[in-house]
Amino acid sequence: MKLDVFFSQLAHKIRASEVRELLKWQEKKKIISFGGGFPDPELYPVDELADIARDVILLYRGEALKYGTTEGLDELREEILKFMKRFGIKVGGLDNVIITSGSQQAIDILSRILIDPGDVVIVEKPTYLAAINAFNLSSPKYYGVPMDQEGMKIDTLESLLKEIKRRNERVKFVYTIPTAQNPTGLTMSNERRRRLIELAEEYDLLIVEDNPYSYILFEPVKYEHLKSLDKTGRVIHLSTLSKVLVPGLRIGWVIAEEDITRKMVLAKQSMDVCSSTFSQYIAYEAFRRGLIDKQLKILPKFYKRKRDLMLCFLEEYMPEKTHWIKPIGGMYIFVSLPDVVDTRELLTEALNRGVCYIPGDSFFIDRSGRNTMRLNFSYPKAHEIEEGIKILGELFREVVDKRLFTKVAA
Amino acid sequence: MKLDVFFSQLAHKIRASEVRELLKWQEKKKIISFGGGFPDPELYPVDELADIARDVILLYRGEALKYGTTEGLDELREEILKFMKRFGIKVGGLDNVIITSGSQQAIDILSRILIDPGDVVIVEKPTYLAAINAFNLSSPKYYGVPMDQEGMKIDTLESLLKEIKRRNERVKFVYTIPTAQNPTGLTMSNERRRRLIELAEEYDLLIVEDNPYSYILFEPVKYEHLKSLDKTGRVIHLSTLSKVLVPGLRIGWVIAEEDITRKMVLAKQSMDVCSSTFSQYIAYEAFRRGLIDKQLKILPKFYKRKRDLMLCFLEEYMPEKTHWIKPIGGMYIFVSLPDVVDTRELLTEALNRGVCYIPGDSFFIDRSGRNTMRLNFSYPKAHEIEEGIKILGELFREVVDKRLFTKVAA
Repeated sequence: MKLDVFFSQLAHKIRASEVRELLKWQEKKKIISFGGGFPDPELYPVDELADIARDVILLYRGEALKYGTTEGLDELREEILKFMKRFGIKVGGLDNVIITSGSQQAIDILSRILIDPGDVVIVEKPTYLAAINAFNLSSPKYYGVPMDQEGMKIDTLESLLKEIKRRNERVKFVYTIPTAQNPTGLTMSNERRRRLIELAEEYDLLIVEDNPYSYILFEPVKYEHLKSLDKTGRVIHLSTLSKVLVPGLRIGWVIAEEDITRKMVLAKQSMDVCSSTFSQYIAYEAFRRGLIDKQLKILPKFYKRKRDLMLCFLEEYMPEKTHWIKPIGGMYIFVSLPDVVDTRELLTEALNRGVCYIPGDSFFIDRSGRNTMRLNFSYPKAHEIEEGIKILGELFREVVDKRLFTKVAA
Repeated sequence: MKLDVFFSQLAHKIRASEVRELLKWQEKKKIISFGGGFPDPELYPVDELADIARDVILLYRGEALKYGTTEGLDELREEILKFMKRFGIKVGGLDNVIITSGSQQAIDILSRILIDPGDVVIVEKPTYLAAINAFNLSSPKYYGVPMDQEGMKIDTLESLLKEIKRRNERVKFVYTIPTAQNPTGLTMSNERRRRLIELAEEYDLLIVEDNPYSYILFEPVKYEHLKSLDKTGRVIHLSTLSKVLVPGLRIGWVIAEEDITRKMVLAKQSMDVCSSTFSQYIAYEAFRRGLIDKQLKILPKFYKRKRDLMLCFLEEYMPEKTHWIKPIGGMYIFVSLPDVVDTRELLTEALNRGVCYIPGDSFFIDRSGRNTMRLNFSYPKAHEIEEGIKILGELFREVVDKRLFTKVAA
């Protein structure tokens, strides 16, 4: 039977996340993956988590297995408040923190409770594509702000805000990943962070600060979270254990004004009743037993080595006039190739040769950046980094040398 | 600062789930709860789950802790296909089943991919209120179909469908809990099930069959799932481990045509990337080790005893002219009191006296049923059932005797 007629307008609009689709493809074939934003499974504290998983059930019995409150386990929220405080984020209390099923759910909830069709959402250019996909479900209008070495260009943002005001459009929020941004790896300077907060106040808008990567910094730099600079409750801070501990527990959190967390909880009630109580108890014990702290010590060193390897092989194998950003943290290197290289067009060939990356245009709301790509260095093994970059380098050099021109154009 | 201005129209519309709010209240005070739809924690296989939780991490290592595919763990979906087959539901293969974070998430996803504002959704009268809350996020128009001892009145449904067709309105689906319905405990007869499927074909509409309770039947009756009668792919079957195993893992599933599961997966990608991989591995092992089967054997006997206790005390303590439905399964007894008893108005007094129930009007889209209430018998302990029903009986008899009239009206 024809089922198409039953779908809502929204359903007709939803497109597959290209990253997720790529990953499925990749699971079926042995391939070197620079695609997903996966932590290295070698860093999963498997044995500790096996013990914790059993212990929380034996310790908390039915409590760890029942329906929980929608806002999340009090004990875990307490731990998160303490944890956030160590990073300069001080908020009133438990009512300012809720647990979500990964940060993605937080983004989806915010999309639903903040965006009406046509509302303006301002994003970095490029930005995290799964956030865009979630926002799209509420049909916003996007404006993108370009970035440089200090992150989002705040002067450009200011001009944009003036222009938007002149047009009488309604800006709901600026979505930013200020630290070790996805996909660029860029980090916003402290000065710009302060300026961003000022602009938010001046133009009366919210800021959604997505922060999965600030726990993985390779240099002894000290960045102030936007939430820690926020005096008026405009910043909604999102974070997650997915990159720090393991992704499979689906534990994320939101720090925000109570008015906002309350609305989020109301929406979440209808969305999934509550996040996994069991996962929350495990996360709680992981904090309590110092496992998160242990991870925080190990991760940066481990990933720095992988970043450096990738940088080194990019230098060795990429064609002339290829540029990339050396990230001070996170999981990605963003690469700009000579204009003749169309990374989207070349992806199939790259996959055929056994390497996966994300074409850069996926991260641009205007689909520009066809000569860019995002490379993840956290997941592949060291030897795969060399092998994969070598394969990509060869492919792109063939294109630059026009040797592949006919083949690819066909 | 004033945050109200930032909320979307949707956010302004969302209301708290009364059940969830009641439950929060109840957690803070020692109270006998006939409120939530909770399994008895005594039935949680705590020690088995503690072993399984540790074992799956030790067995599957990083696999059990990583990001999973959005549609869910293949191994678990295989087990669910086998499980469903035992209940007469035979579908093509893995592409017809997806895992969700509880059935609630499935309902929310369906709300988003099926309903455009103004689309008609047909529900039983009364029906599960959290489904209504999730559908509300997409602003449908509801029609309710009354029920009798054989479940939804299919003749009335047919007249309604004719009338809706005459009005040129678009029916998207009929939402039904055919077996041991929430809140009434009523079960649709097999004859009506067949008739319902015929009507769905005749009027070209979908059926959402929500099935949390068919695993808890107190009599040796054999009901055919709507999905097992479905020849044209119109039935979307939802189920969950929440009532059978434990709720805190958040494992639900959907059986449907591939066109539908595919759209659901696309929506879910943006909603939470994937459900907890770890929970899915635990559920998989629970199936594999026969733990689900063990639960299926224990549950009906255990809950039948509780149902019978509650029926017995209702008989003893409720005022004259109180009626209730003897459920053949599930977790609820739906009680109709004499018209003078307004269960919503009396709830505060009941809570003061230490007993919680859900006022029946919560389950009616037209807010009728002010003299009804839903009592849950699965969660309270045996002595609480006696004590709680006695307290409620006294309260309602005072009202019937007009002794409370002035107090309550004030």
